[in-house]
Amino acid sequence: MPSLPGFRDFYPADCAFRNALFSTWRATAQRYGFVEYDGPPLEELELYTKKSGEEIVGQLYHFVDKGERAVAMRSEMTPTLARMVAAAHRDYKKPIKWFSIPQVFRYERMQRGRLREHFQLNCDLIGEASLEADVELISLCIDTLRSFGLTDKDFVIRLSDRQFWVDFLKSKNIPEDQWYGVFQAIDKFDRQPREKTAELLGPLADEVFNILDHGAASERLDTVENGLKARGLGDYYKRDFTIVRGLAYYTGVVFEAFDRSGEFRAIAGGGRYDNLLKNLGGVDLPALGFGMGDVVLGEILKKKELLKPATASIQAYVVVPDETYRAEAAGILQKLRDAGIAADMPLSPTKIGKQFQSAEERGATHAVVVDAEIKNGTVAVKTLADRKQVAIALDQLIPTLKG
Amino acid sequence: MPSLPGFRDFYPADCAFRNALFSTWRATAQRYGFVEYDGPPLEELELYTKKSGEEIVGQLYHFVDKGERAVAMRSEMTPTLARMVAAAHRDYKKPIKWFSIPQVFRYERMQRGRLREHFQLNCDLIGEASLEADVELISLCIDTLRSFGLTDKDFVIRLSDRQFWVDFLKSKNIPEDQWYGVFQAIDKFDRQPREKTAELLGPLADEVFNILDHGAASERLDTVENGLKARGLGDYYKRDFTIVRGLAYYTGVVFEAFDRSGEFRAIAGGGRYDNLLKNLGGVDLPALGFGMGDVVLGEILKKKELLKPATASIQAYVVVPDETYRAEAAGILQKLRDAGIAADMPLSPTKIGKQFQSAEERGATHAVVVDAEIKNGTVAVKTLADRKQVAIALDQLIPTLKG
Repeated sequence: MPSLPGFRDFYPADCAFRNALFSTWRATAQRYGFVEYDGPPLEELELYTKKSGEEIVGQLYHFVDKGERAVAMRSEMTPTLARMVAAAHRDYKKPIKWFSIPQVFRYERMQRGRLREHFQLNCDLIGEASLEADVELISLCIDTLRSFGLTDKDFVIRLSDRQFWVDFLKSKNIPEDQWYGVFQAIDKFDRQPREKTAELLGPLADEVFNILDHGAASERLDTVENGLKARGLGDYYKRDFTIVRGLAYYTGVVFEAFDRSGEFRAIAGGGRYDNLLKNLGGVDLPALGFGMGDVVLGEILKKKELLKPATASIQAYVVVPDETYRAEAAGILQKLRDAGIAADMPLSPTKIGKQFQSAEERGATHAVVVDAEIKNGTVAVKTLADRKQVAIALDQLIPTLKG
Repeated sequence: MPSLPGFRDFYPADCAFRNALFSTWRATAQRYGFVEYDGPPLEELELYTKKSGEEIVGQLYHFVDKGERAVAMRSEMTPTLARMVAAAHRDYKKPIKWFSIPQVFRYERMQRGRLREHFQLNCDLIGEASLEADVELISLCIDTLRSFGLTDKDFVIRLSDRQFWVDFLKSKNIPEDQWYGVFQAIDKFDRQPREKTAELLGPLADEVFNILDHGAASERLDTVENGLKARGLGDYYKRDFTIVRGLAYYTGVVFEAFDRSGEFRAIAGGGRYDNLLKNLGGVDLPALGFGMGDVVLGEILKKKELLKPATASIQAYVVVPDETYRAEAAGILQKLRDAGIAADMPLSPTKIGKQFQSAEERGATHAVVVDAEIKNGTVAVKTLADRKQVAIALDQLIPTLKG
C-alpha cells in the first residue's frame, strides 16, 4: 500500500534535506527579527470560504467531523494567521513580525511536479503601513534565497504594483466583477498569444499592452526599489507589471521570485494586503507577507547542488569482540552518550570484522574496542581514517574522543 | 472564530517551547544513532483499520476525498512506519533505528487536558530480535527524559512482560477473544476496587492477584534489567506487571514512563511488536518502539521549570534619529544581517527614545546609531547594558559587534 497520490514519504535522506531547508528558512527569518508561530492543520471550513469564497471548497480537503462541524485541512496559512492576530494582537508590539512553516493541503488535479501537500515558509509583517515594510519583507525574501547560496544570477524578484492596476481599472470605470478576468489576462500575458490576450482585454487591450511593453510610473515601486538599492539589493529585482497575484485581497506592491532560467514555477510570492485582517478578523491593521514552498525551491537547490546535508552519522562505535564484556561495553557506550557523543554498538553477537564495517558505514571517526583489557581499566581506540590504534585509560576516553 | 476544540494555536512563546522540546528529542535520538523520517499526515483509512480493527474508525478524523478514497488523518505513526519499511527495508542495513515527530489526531471526547491533536516522538528499532535492543530502546526513553533535566526522583519506567501474560492465559486455556478483557482488568488494577477487578477476572482472580502483589519470574525482564544496570540506569525502572499496553500487537517486554508524583498520565509507552510488520506490511522483521507525546511531558517540564527557552531576540538595533540617513541606516542593517547578526530597525519615522525602548524590549545588546557622522564613516555603538556609547569606524562595526 503506497502513500496517497500527491503525498510524500520522507525517508531519512529526504527528511535530512527537508530539515536542512527548514533550518535555513528559520535562521534567515530570525536574523530579520521574525519569530515563529504555528497553528492547527485543521480549521473550520468557514475560515477559508470567508477569505476566498465558496469556489475554494473545490480545492480543499474538507469534511464534516464527528461533532457536526464543517472542517478543512489548511490550504494556506493566512486565514489562521488572521484568526490568531485578531484574537491576540493587543499582546504584541507593532510591527508584528511572524513566520511559520506549515504543511498545507490542496486537492489539485495531478500534474508533473504538482503535489497535494507542501511545506510553505510564511513571513508576515503586521501593523506597519510604510513602504519601508515592503522593502523589509522583499529583502527577507531575497536573503532567504541568498542564504542557500543562490545569487542574482540564479533568481530575480518580479516587482509589481497591484494598486496601480486597481487605479487603472477604476479610471476606466470597469466594474469590479470584471477585474478578475483582466488580472487573469495580464497574468498570462507572457504565456499566451498576444491576440488571445487582446481578445480577453477587449477595449482595454491597447492601453494595457502599452503598459506591459513600456512600463508605467509608480511612486510606490520607485520608493520600494530605492529601498532595495539602499540595502545593496539592486540586482535582485526587475519591475514587471504582469505580476498581479490573482487573489482579490492584495492592495499594494506585489512580487514573485523566479528562477532566471525560466524552467521552474514561481519560487515565492507575496505582497501587501492591508484590508484582509479587517475583513477576516475584524482587526484593522495594515499587513503584508509572502509564501515560499519547499517543492520548487528544493528542485532548484538539488539541480544546482546547493543544499547537500550530510547524512546523519555517529562519532564512535563501541566494538565488542568478546561477549563476556558486553556489560562493560554497554556501560562505556552510555558514558559516551552522556558526554554528548553520538555512539552505537552491536545489539547482538557480531563478528569483529563486521563491527568495524558497521563503524565505517555509519560514519564513525573512532572505534572503541572493549575486551579483556577493560579489567586493567583500558580500552583500545582506533582512528578509522588511518587505522591507528592506541590503548587509552578509561578516564581519558571522553577527552580523547572530544579532543 | 477560535481554533477547533482540542486544537492548539502556537503563539511565539508556545512555539519556542515546542521547538525547544523537539530539539531535545532530536538531539537525544541522534546521540543514540537514530535518524529522522516523516510520512504524510493523511493516509488511506484501511492502513489504520488493518492494524487496529474497525473499532478505531470511531476515533479517527476520516472522510472520503474528492477521488473517492476513504482517508484518515494519522492517529499514530506505526502504520505509516510499517508501510514505509515494507516498501524500502532492503535499502537499509539492520537494525534500522528511526525516529519521527509527527502530529497525530484523534477525535476523543473532550476531557481535562485531553486534546484532539498532539505531537509524538516515535522511536523504533527494526530488525533486531535480541533483548539488548529492548535495553537500547528503554535507555533511549530514559535518556530522552534525562536530557530535559528530569532525574530518577522525577520519573520511573514501569517495566512489564506482555509475553508472560500471554503464556499465562494460554496455560489456563483462556480463549483469545477473552484476553482483552483480562488485560483491561490488569491494567486498571491500581485504579479500581479489588472486588471489581476480582469480578472481571473471575476464576483467574486469585492467581492474577498473587502475581500483581508478589511479582513473578521473567527471564526476559531479568535480562533487560541487567542490561539497564550495566548502563548505569538501575534507578530508573521498576518491575510492574500491571503494565500490559492494551493494544493487541505487543509480543514481549512492554513499558511506560510515569511521573513519580502520580499526578500525570503516562509520559511515554512502548514495547516489542515482533509480528506487526508482517501483519501490516508483509515483511517479517522483529521490531520495537515507543511513543512520547508533547502534552504530558510539556506539563511536567513547565511545572518543574525545566524547559524555559529564551524568547527570540535580536542582537543589534539600528537607530535612525534623522530620516535623512534612513538609506544609509538600511545599508548598515543589511551588512549586519549579512554577517549573521540578528538585527532590526524602525520601519517608519519614530522618536529616538522609542527606538531605544524597542531595542531593549527586543533583547538587543547593542544599538547602532546612524546619523550625520555617517558622512565621516563612523556610527555610534551603544552597549545597552551599561549605556556606554563609542564612535566606531564602519569597517570596525561587524568585528565590534561579533567580538
